Amino acid sequence: MAIEVDYRFPPGVDAEKQAKIIAVGQTVGTWDARFAHREESLKSHLAFVVSVRKESTGYSIATIRFPQANVENDIPSLLTMIFGKYSMAGAAKVVAVRLPENYGQLPKVGISGIRERLGVFNRPLVMAIFKPALGLSAAEHAAILKEVATAGLDIIKDDEILGDLESAPTLERLRACRQVIEELEEKTGRTILYAVNVTGKNPVEMARRLVKEGANALLFNVLTYGFCVLEQLASDREINVPIFAHPAFAGAMCAAPDFGLSYSVVLGTLMAHAGADAVLYPAHYGSLPFDKQEEEKIRDSLRARNVFPVPSAGIHPGIVPRAIADYGTDVILNAGTGIMDHPDNPAAGVKAFFEALELAEPGKPFNLASLPEGALRRAVEKWGNK
Amino acid sequence: MAIEVDYRFPPGVDAEKQAKIIAVGQTVGTWDARFAHREESLKSHLAFVVSVRKESTGYSIATIRFPQANVENDIPSLLTMIFGKYSMAGAAKVVAVRLPENYGQLPKVGISGIRERLGVFNRPLVMAIFKPALGLSAAEHAAILKEVATAGLDIIKDDEILGDLESAPTLERLRACRQVIEELEEKTGRTILYAVNVTGKNPVEMARRLVKEGANALLFNVLTYGFCVLEQLASDREINVPIFAHPAFAGAMCAAPDFGLSYSVVLGTLMAHAGADAVLYPAHYGSLPFDKQEEEKIRDSLRARNVFPVPSAGIHPGIVPRAIADYGTDVILNAGTGIMDHPDNPAAGVKAFFEALELAEPGKPFNLASLPEGALRRAVEKWGNK
Repeated sequence: MAIEVDYRFPPGVDAEKQAKIIAVGQTVGTWDARFAHREESLKSHLAFVVSVRKESTGYSIATIRFPQANVENDIPSLLTMIFGKYSMAGAAKVVAVRLPENYGQLPKVGISGIRERLGVFNRPLVMAIFKPALGLSAAEHAAILKEVATAGLDIIKDDEILGDLESAPTLERLRACRQVIEELEEKTGRTILYAVNVTGKNPVEMARRLVKEGANALLFNVLTYGFCVLEQLASDREINVPIFAHPAFAGAMCAAPDFGLSYSVVLGTLMAHAGADAVLYPAHYGSLPFDKQEEEKIRDSLRARNVFPVPSAGIHPGIVPRAIADYGTDVILNAGTGIMDHPDNPAAGVKAFFEALELAEPGKPFNLASLPEGALRRAVEKWGNK
Repeated sequence: MAIEVDYRFPPGVDAEKQAKIIAVGQTVGTWDARFAHREESLKSHLAFVVSVRKESTGYSIATIRFPQANVENDIPSLLTMIFGKYSMAGAAKVVAVRLPENYGQLPKVGISGIRERLGVFNRPLVMAIFKPALGLSAAEHAAILKEVATAGLDIIKDDEILGDLESAPTLERLRACRQVIEELEEKTGRTILYAVNVTGKNPVEMARRLVKEGANALLFNVLTYGFCVLEQLASDREINVPIFAHPAFAGAMCAAPDFGLSYSVVLGTLMAHAGADAVLYPAHYGSLPFDKQEEEKIRDSLRARNVFPVPSAGIHPGIVPRAIADYGTDVILNAGTGIMDHPDNPAAGVKAFFEALELAEPGKPFNLASLPEGALRRAVEKWGNK
């Protein structure tokens, strides 16, 4: 099977010409009579232009088909081929990548596995983020965890910028939090996943160490460390816990209208073929500018491979009805300040989400006037209901 | 010491406001009275806005100083901090990063070491690229190598898209080429560096294997595999050969005017602190659109840390005088088709470069009329002299 890529060119670019440059320049290059005897082998590695069409906006989309034999069933060699040197050639954006189903890898745990580990099968999951992001001690992390875990939270994660710092070394944080999780399990039979941030010079070794020390989930900044490292984490047998992929740095390669790759390619297609178990990305009703259509594509690419979509950034209880309308059940609602900065306390933040999940039904009113007293009402008073 | 970053905002963006959002949002975030007792620790992790100035173009530059204690002396944690989540927040470009001298790592081999290995101290080095990029057998690679090595070439590299493919497995290519190199060494006392492309699911293991099998240089697509992997290669004791960093995919994060990072940050500052021994990037007189000032910044950032600058893409013998005027001696001139597609043969392509180096003196005429018969003249007839 082949690999198909859609490139979008802004008005004024000769898309036909550029498409040919890509098909040749990103594969074999040109050759002369000296290599006539290798013609068959050379040709087998050439890409070809499937179509070039102009849209009503003046933009053009060129579809190019690459031989799978040129790449190594991973994301890095794929990116080098489809947009390596050509990324420096001028205005062009990779807006879709269609990969064979068996390209790359599937998640080890994924939606079904995360649900099994939590014993929660029929509702969206609720996730929080430790805040403030930096400067707390391990014991303070544990204290926060205790509060939100007792309130019924499903998952918590480190802030993505919290690394293995002197002020709260990762292993210390994990050990302190692990104790809280074990107590919760003993007392209630429930558990909570804590996605510890994997960082350092050797993230794979670090992840193995964390899993040995009882980590039941990992957080990873795929785009600043590299897809190669995600693939190593995902294919490592010792690392048998879900990997939550964070989108930090995605804007550097996706935010420009006419350069780089679409968010849906990087956070959807590529993450889903690189072995992530759950992928975070901005929700279009959140605090970051994000396109609804891109978000839908990400959601669908992830789910198609059993990967949990995790819309994030500015998520608070008031948006739950919209999120449920967009996502239904298989979604992780991830809130940072939307839980930690609840006017009462973080536990109330968690409760507000569960109250919202109970109430969120299509067509049902969800406004201050209709909300009973309680955590949800207090949240909506602070953050509104959209 | 602190880390300073310059962010550039287009006209219409409230740069003062955005700078504050970065300083707080990319570090601790906000906190309330519950954390009053941690005030000192929290504050120690906050970044602060050094200055915000408006340029005559209407663009604004905000300089922000981050505590080094927030990061782990590597590029991935640095990128997460300075442009992780914020990269998704709107139009903003990272145009400069100033790191403490001891941040990250220095090259193991670098300019001085590459010169020692080649025994060439007082002139620019000449480098070629195997072409066609894909579809040749290992024996054909060796035959090409023999031709250009005998002609006096200093360095050759795989094309960046040539991975470990069935048609010519990397180890086979290396073994075939290694034999040519050994013969050259025996016969002439000279050597040639062959930068083999490191790819695969475990590039560090692959690189160790290649070095054990006699590889005397490596090529690596840093931006598609990840800075983390470059740092691992650079700090690995077994990998005692120069690493040539390729810029494939740099345009995805650098080409947009108002998003991502400047080329000089990614291919200059970050590469130089991640341990690369030589870094390839487009020359402004080459075949890719590139800014002269950015190129100069890259050159200077690399040299300041003993890293070889390798201007590339569309380099041919006719541009040698301009390259020498810009670079002087410490430069590697890297030509793909500019050597391999010489009208006579690749050996003539190499000779043309050395003839050009002999002739290239400031103010000396360098045009068809003044050139004697020979390889250089033939090259200039084909590609011109600029």
